[in-house]
Amino acid sequence: MTHQILSDGSATTPRGFSAAAVAAGIKQSGRPDLVLVFSDRDCTAAGVFTRNRVAAAPVIVDRATLATNNSAIRGVVINSGNANACTGEPGLANAREMQRLASEELGGRPDQYLVMSTGVIGVPLPIERVRSGILIAAPSLSPDNGIAAAEGIMTTDTRPKHLAIEIQLPGGTVTLGGMAKGAGMIHPDMATLLGVVTTDAAVSADDLATMLREAADRSFNAISIDGDTSTNDTILLLANGAGGVSVNDAESRELFANALNELCHALAMMVVSDGEGVTRVVTVHVTGARTESDARRVANTIATSPLVKTAFAGGDPNWGRILAATGRSGVDLDQSRLALWIGVGDEPPLQIVRDGTPTNFVEADAAAVFAQPAFTVRVDLGDGSAETVLWTTDLTHDYVTINADYRT
Amino acid sequence: MTHQILSDGSATTPRGFSAAAVAAGIKQSGRPDLVLVFSDRDCTAAGVFTRNRVAAAPVIVDRATLATNNSAIRGVVINSGNANACTGEPGLANAREMQRLASEELGGRPDQYLVMSTGVIGVPLPIERVRSGILIAAPSLSPDNGIAAAEGIMTTDTRPKHLAIEIQLPGGTVTLGGMAKGAGMIHPDMATLLGVVTTDAAVSADDLATMLREAADRSFNAISIDGDTSTNDTILLLANGAGGVSVNDAESRELFANALNELCHALAMMVVSDGEGVTRVVTVHVTGARTESDARRVANTIATSPLVKTAFAGGDPNWGRILAATGRSGVDLDQSRLALWIGVGDEPPLQIVRDGTPTNFVEADAAAVFAQPAFTVRVDLGDGSAETVLWTTDLTHDYVTINADYRT
Repeated sequence: MTHQILSDGSATTPRGFSAAAVAAGIKQSGRPDLVLVFSDRDCTAAGVFTRNRVAAAPVIVDRATLATNNSAIRGVVINSGNANACTGEPGLANAREMQRLASEELGGRPDQYLVMSTGVIGVPLPIERVRSGILIAAPSLSPDNGIAAAEGIMTTDTRPKHLAIEIQLPGGTVTLGGMAKGAGMIHPDMATLLGVVTTDAAVSADDLATMLREAADRSFNAISIDGDTSTNDTILLLANGAGGVSVNDAESRELFANALNELCHALAMMVVSDGEGVTRVVTVHVTGARTESDARRVANTIATSPLVKTAFAGGDPNWGRILAATGRSGVDLDQSRLALWIGVGDEPPLQIVRDGTPTNFVEADAAAVFAQPAFTVRVDLGDGSAETVLWTTDLTHDYVTINADYRT
Repeated sequence: MTHQILSDGSATTPRGFSAAAVAAGIKQSGRPDLVLVFSDRDCTAAGVFTRNRVAAAPVIVDRATLATNNSAIRGVVINSGNANACTGEPGLANAREMQRLASEELGGRPDQYLVMSTGVIGVPLPIERVRSGILIAAPSLSPDNGIAAAEGIMTTDTRPKHLAIEIQLPGGTVTLGGMAKGAGMIHPDMATLLGVVTTDAAVSADDLATMLREAADRSFNAISIDGDTSTNDTILLLANGAGGVSVNDAESRELFANALNELCHALAMMVVSDGEGVTRVVTVHVTGARTESDARRVANTIATSPLVKTAFAGGDPNWGRILAATGRSGVDLDQSRLALWIGVGDEPPLQIVRDGTPTNFVEADAAAVFAQPAFTVRVDLGDGSAETVLWTTDLTHDYVTINADYRT
């Protein structure tokens, strides 16, 4: 069973997809900010959206669109530089206008286009610029523009995030491609996470929805953490069947789902490691919980604790803060049963706490782990067999700099 | 009714109380780190403790002590520089040893002394240094050492926090005094908050417990936010009756409770404004909620959002982040009913959002508010009449610096 990862692949690697990215003047920087992703035929489609009760206009419009049309989608229009969030009725009208403009330039009906926006919240979308951008972008659609599209959706990202995977199914080879952007906070306040995943396999809309939800939970939702999402977070999955291979039997479904999981996980890890000001990526593994929800609560509290994250930034094995975060997670636990390990890669981890009490570990060994750019923290609650894994980052000066001055 | 605030007052301003502060070598800096607060007669006492499930040894010992003796307390032994948290059975033995050493030097039984610790977590308490400190401190007890005691409990605090209030009760004048320390994060991860409040009024232990709980909820718990407390957080209230005035009628109780509220609030505000790296103190006022719990959830989410707090640091009126935090609070709400105002002091506030949509406010006016060292953010959910107020701070480079290198 071949299974090939194409690190220079993108959302246009699957057959039948093309893209365009232009600078429409929405970003003050003058960098590309208007992106089209287009399929030469109708796609089945699914989306995973923010759970934030303050949802941006494009999220509201996409939810409504997919509710009535999830099997004849032709493309996605994305702007960066403005989130079209907290913009009221005019914002909704602008999101719908993006659909209409796309259909005018690319053919089909407005409800065959999905929309995404990312950038500053609460500022009216400069719809005239979006219109000009779509006009300029449409003629330049090309399968070669997949990476340019990944660049065009960036905000505070420092590098584009894209990937493709080719897999051999019983019926033939299919390709999955994707791109993502994230302000990379990996945080309850994570600025917008956007992702577009495409495939030339033929997959029913229902299967797409199920598989995307699962893949997102193990990837994007394990970095954005427990539904604490921005106003705009959206992952879209489009399948156009251009490869002539159907995913309609159990084996194909499993292989396809695995590849989708892998693609989403890889994109999510690119988002984490490009997080704002990030110098370390930390895997938070919570085991021994009564329920997965308990494990998740503890992991989430650790992963979002400013005191823990600043200790990561300083490379300081201040493990007491990890236990303190565990204790305030709201999960009922017995501190005398807590255990803590830290470790790097496949090396045997260093046990720091046993039965709630520090072991006689060597401080320098702990410091050596926290000095790495990537390491794992495992907390065992000693209370069951449920577990979870989240990925988080350190909290650095650069994070403060980026976010204190984001709008200016 | 006289009611006098003594800004140079402290925990030793009420009659019968004395204090001592010495450098016992627990802090690497060599600054004072061992403090005694002593009453010349038995006190009724109450405590409010962290809700963290990982509770430090002194918290466990104080809870147990007050459960069997809340009417014959003689004093408090406090060390800074080491939290005696996550230290297992040896930690508990050390906390009890602090009680025993105090009783040996100051008289009475071990269970007549309460203990507090603040500092690094997970490092064994250097009990020999604590012992030496108690030996040196005991002979120097004096009513003049109240401010020195407030200095001796500091960790990353930049200034001591102390205050006294004199009030006229029907039965005569009584004095309340207090000191506090906080790493001042005003955050779920707030490093330890300690407070000692004393009074020369005679108050029953039951009344003390009720009044302290109420006062803490409106002050320390409105900055430490929703029970998300450190392993060590403790507020103690001791009443020795040395002034010969009893608080045992409704009017006295009300006047005394008001003064206690005011004292705790003033100490809490000192903690906020001395928060780590803090340059702005922000009042978060949530109104129009269905329940107070909803209001608190929204306020808590806003008050702890790194994106909101970095925007405060940058003086950037990035109000969209406030609405985004509101939306992800987990409270069911209708974004089209949200309203937002910002304002300074008693000036009429500037309305930024009405019906979920930005007003035509002038950007420069919003920037002028966010440039202030103290301002108020009010979010109205348009859904009821419950409300709450919390106090928070900005998140600055200095916060990262202090916390990335706290142990080193």
